[in-house]
Amino acid sequence: MSGTVVPRLVAAVSEQRQWDRLMEMARLGAFTGADGSPGVNRPCLSPLDREARRLLIGWGMAIGLTPSIDALGNLFLRHEGQDPGLAPVLTGSHMDSQPAGGRFDGIWGVLAGLEAIQALREAGITPRRPIELVAWTNEEGGRFAPGCMGSMAYAGHSKPDTWDAVTDGEGIRFGDALREQLMLEADLPRRPLGVVEGPAPHAYVEAHIEQGPRLETEGFDIGVVTGIQGSRWFLVEIIGESAHAGTAPLSTRRDAVQDMLRAITALNALMDDPTDILRFTVARIEVQPNSSNSVAERVRFTIDFRHPSAAVLAQRGDAIEATIRGAVQRCEVVVTERFHAQPVDFAPEVTEAVARASAAQGLKALRMPSGAFHDAQFMVPLCPSGMIFVPSRGGISHNPAEYSSPAQLAAGARVLAQVLGELAET
Amino acid sequence: MSGTVVPRLVAAVSEQRQWDRLMEMARLGAFTGADGSPGVNRPCLSPLDREARRLLIGWGMAIGLTPSIDALGNLFLRHEGQDPGLAPVLTGSHMDSQPAGGRFDGIWGVLAGLEAIQALREAGITPRRPIELVAWTNEEGGRFAPGCMGSMAYAGHSKPDTWDAVTDGEGIRFGDALREQLMLEADLPRRPLGVVEGPAPHAYVEAHIEQGPRLETEGFDIGVVTGIQGSRWFLVEIIGESAHAGTAPLSTRRDAVQDMLRAITALNALMDDPTDILRFTVARIEVQPNSSNSVAERVRFTIDFRHPSAAVLAQRGDAIEATIRGAVQRCEVVVTERFHAQPVDFAPEVTEAVARASAAQGLKALRMPSGAFHDAQFMVPLCPSGMIFVPSRGGISHNPAEYSSPAQLAAGARVLAQVLGELAET
Repeated sequence: MSGTVVPRLVAAVSEQRQWDRLMEMARLGAFTGADGSPGVNRPCLSPLDREARRLLIGWGMAIGLTPSIDALGNLFLRHEGQDPGLAPVLTGSHMDSQPAGGRFDGIWGVLAGLEAIQALREAGITPRRPIELVAWTNEEGGRFAPGCMGSMAYAGHSKPDTWDAVTDGEGIRFGDALREQLMLEADLPRRPLGVVEGPAPHAYVEAHIEQGPRLETEGFDIGVVTGIQGSRWFLVEIIGESAHAGTAPLSTRRDAVQDMLRAITALNALMDDPTDILRFTVARIEVQPNSSNSVAERVRFTIDFRHPSAAVLAQRGDAIEATIRGAVQRCEVVVTERFHAQPVDFAPEVTEAVARASAAQGLKALRMPSGAFHDAQFMVPLCPSGMIFVPSRGGISHNPAEYSSPAQLAAGARVLAQVLGELAET
Repeated sequence: MSGTVVPRLVAAVSEQRQWDRLMEMARLGAFTGADGSPGVNRPCLSPLDREARRLLIGWGMAIGLTPSIDALGNLFLRHEGQDPGLAPVLTGSHMDSQPAGGRFDGIWGVLAGLEAIQALREAGITPRRPIELVAWTNEEGGRFAPGCMGSMAYAGHSKPDTWDAVTDGEGIRFGDALREQLMLEADLPRRPLGVVEGPAPHAYVEAHIEQGPRLETEGFDIGVVTGIQGSRWFLVEIIGESAHAGTAPLSTRRDAVQDMLRAITALNALMDDPTDILRFTVARIEVQPNSSNSVAERVRFTIDFRHPSAAVLAQRGDAIEATIRGAVQRCEVVVTERFHAQPVDFAPEVTEAVARASAAQGLKALRMPSGAFHDAQFMVPLCPSGMIFVPSRGGISHNPAEYSSPAQLAAGARVLAQVLGELAET
C-alpha cells in the first residue's frame, strides 16, 4: 500500500467500535470469576457459540461481507477483492472459550479481523485479492479434546471425521454436535473444506492476545510472533478396582488414585527443566466412581507437554508412556497420544510485514515465539503465515482476569489492517 | 436354650426360602452392572424402598408378626414373647442400597432376622422376651447424607429433625420425603421413637455381609464382630491460580494439582502402617476448571481415615491438617472435618453368644472388627450389641458384583437364630 493509504486506513480503525463488539460478545457465556472478574464460558458448538456466530455474521453482512461455512463448521466472511479469482488472504481466530475463560482469547482475533476489514472498506480500499475472515471451530478443546479441530481439518492435517466419536462431559459426541450445528446453519452457503476440497489461501495472519507476561513486562506494544512451540497431549487411564474404603486393606487394593500419584510424580522427574522453558501440565482429572468411601476404580488424567525444540519434544514425549508404566504398581495403564503438533516457524513474508507495520505506526514491537498453540500453526504448511500479539495484563489468560486495554487492542487491529492490506496486494 | 432345642431350631432355617426372598427383593431396583453382574439401586424413601417394605411386612404378617413404624420411618415386626412386658431383643439392618450397590448389603440382615424368627416359630419356640425385627431408615446415606439416620435418631444420638433440610440430588428435602412416607404408611401402627420416647431394647444383633475379604481368604464361615473401627472424614480444598498451560512458566505457577500431589504424598507417609490395619483413602477428586490446557485453579479431595484404636484415630487424624499445610508449596489450603465416629466395642454377652452358636453348629468363626460402619454402632450405648458377618466373595461390596452364596447366608441365619433364641431367654 502507498504511503498515503496507510494513515487513512489506520485512522479508520475504531477503538470504540471494536471494544463495544468485544463487550457485546463477552455477554454470551458471561459469568463472574472468584475474584469478581468478568469471565466467559462459551463452549464450542453450544447454543452460546451459535449465538456468537450469528452476531458475527450479522455484523459482517451489515458491512457487505459474504458468509459461508465448511464441513467442520468453520465460519467465513468474505471481503471481495478486485480479482475474485485470486487466492484470498485469510485472517481470524476462534470464538469458543475455556470453561472458565476470559473475554479476549480467540474472540479478539476474530473481531480484530472484522475491524481491519471494515477499516479497509471505510477507507475505500479494495485490494487485488479477497480477504476472508475465519472463525475456526473448536480451537480451545475445552468441550471436545483436542483443540484446533477446525483448522486441522481445513489444513488436511487430520481427516474431517477424526473426532466424530470424541465425547464431551455429558457424553455428547462431537460428530453429533457438529451435525446439529450444520443443520441449524443450513441457511448459510456451504464452501469446500480448506485445502482438502479447495485451493490454499495466499497468506494467513492471526491476531491474538499474548497470554503471557513478556510484552507487558518488557514494555512492548506488539509481538511479532516468530513461531509456535510444539505440543503433545496425552490421555492416561489408570484402571484399578473399586473396594470399600473401610474394609479393604491397603496392601490388597488396586487404588487408581494412588497409582496416578506415582505416575505424576515420575512424570515430574522426567519433565524437570532447570531452564524453565519446558511446559508440563496435568490439569484434568476424572475419578470413578468418585465416592469418598469407595476406593477409586479408574482415573483418567491428561498431560499437556510443550517445548520449542522438536528434539526435546520427541525425546521426552516418547518417554512418557514408559515412565508411567515404570511408576504404577497395582493398576492397568492405557496411554493415548491425542495431539501432536511440531514446533513451527512463521514466514518472513508475514513477520516482516508485521514488523514493518508496527514501525510505520510508531509501535514498539518484540520478536517472540508463542507459548500457546493457535490455529495459525496448521496454516504454516499451506501458505506464508504469522501472528500479531498484543499485551496481556499480568500475563493472565484462560481466566476471567484476562485483560488487554481498548487502546492495546486497537493498536493490534491497526497493525493487522495494514498487514492484510499489504498482503492482499502481493 | 437347651441342647435339644438348638438342632430343631437350626433345622428350621430354610436356605432356599431365605435365598428366594433375597432374590425377590433384588428385583426392586435391579440393574445390570458394567461387568454384567445384577446390581441393585434402591434409594431410601423411594417408591422402590416402599415396595420393599410392603413386601417385608407381607412376609412378616403372614407368619404372625406385628408391624409398626416410628417417627423416622424405622419399620418393626414383632415376634411376641412369653412375657410381653419385657424389653425385646432387637435384630435387623437396612433395606436401602448404594446407588450402584449389590443384592446383599443391608437387606440380607433384615431377611436373616425374618428367617431366624420364622425358624423359632416353626420350631415352636416362644422365648421369654419378644424379638423385634427392624429395618432402619437410610443407613447408606446414598440419597440423603449422612447415613444411619434412623438408628441415630432411635438411639437419641441426634434429634429426629436434624436432617429435615438435607436434600437429595433432585433437591427433595429429607423431611418432606419422610413425611410423605409416613403418610403413605399411615395404616401401620405408630410406635414411640426408640429410647427417646420409649425403653431401651434388651440386646441388639445385626447380621451383615463382611464387605471385605478376610473371611473368604482366611477360610472362615462366620465373623464374630468385636467392634467397629472409628472413622474420620475430611474435605481438603487446595486453592491456586489458573494459567495457560502453554505460556505460564512452571516456576511461576500456583498449580492446585501439583500441590494436591504433595499433600497426598505427605499424607501417605503420615498414614503409613506396616500392620495394614489403618485405612486411608483418597477416592473423590474434583478439579477446576478441569481443562487439559488450563493449570488447575482449585482441587477438592476427600480423606476417609479409619482405625479401631481411638488413640491412633485422634493422633493421626489431628495431624492431617498440619501435614497438608507442611506439604503444599504454592496454594492456599482449607481442611474441614466432615464426620467423626469413635471406635466402638461390642458387648461380650453378644460376641460370646455368636462364638458359642458358631462352635455349636460346627462353623469356623473369626473374631474381627468391622471396617465398615453399621447401624449397630449406635445401639452400643443402649444395650449389649453385636454383629454376625458372613463371607463376601472377593471382598467386594457397594458393587453389583457383591456376592455371598445361599449356603453362606443360611449359615449366618442359623447362627443368628440361635443367638436371638438365647438372648431372648436371658
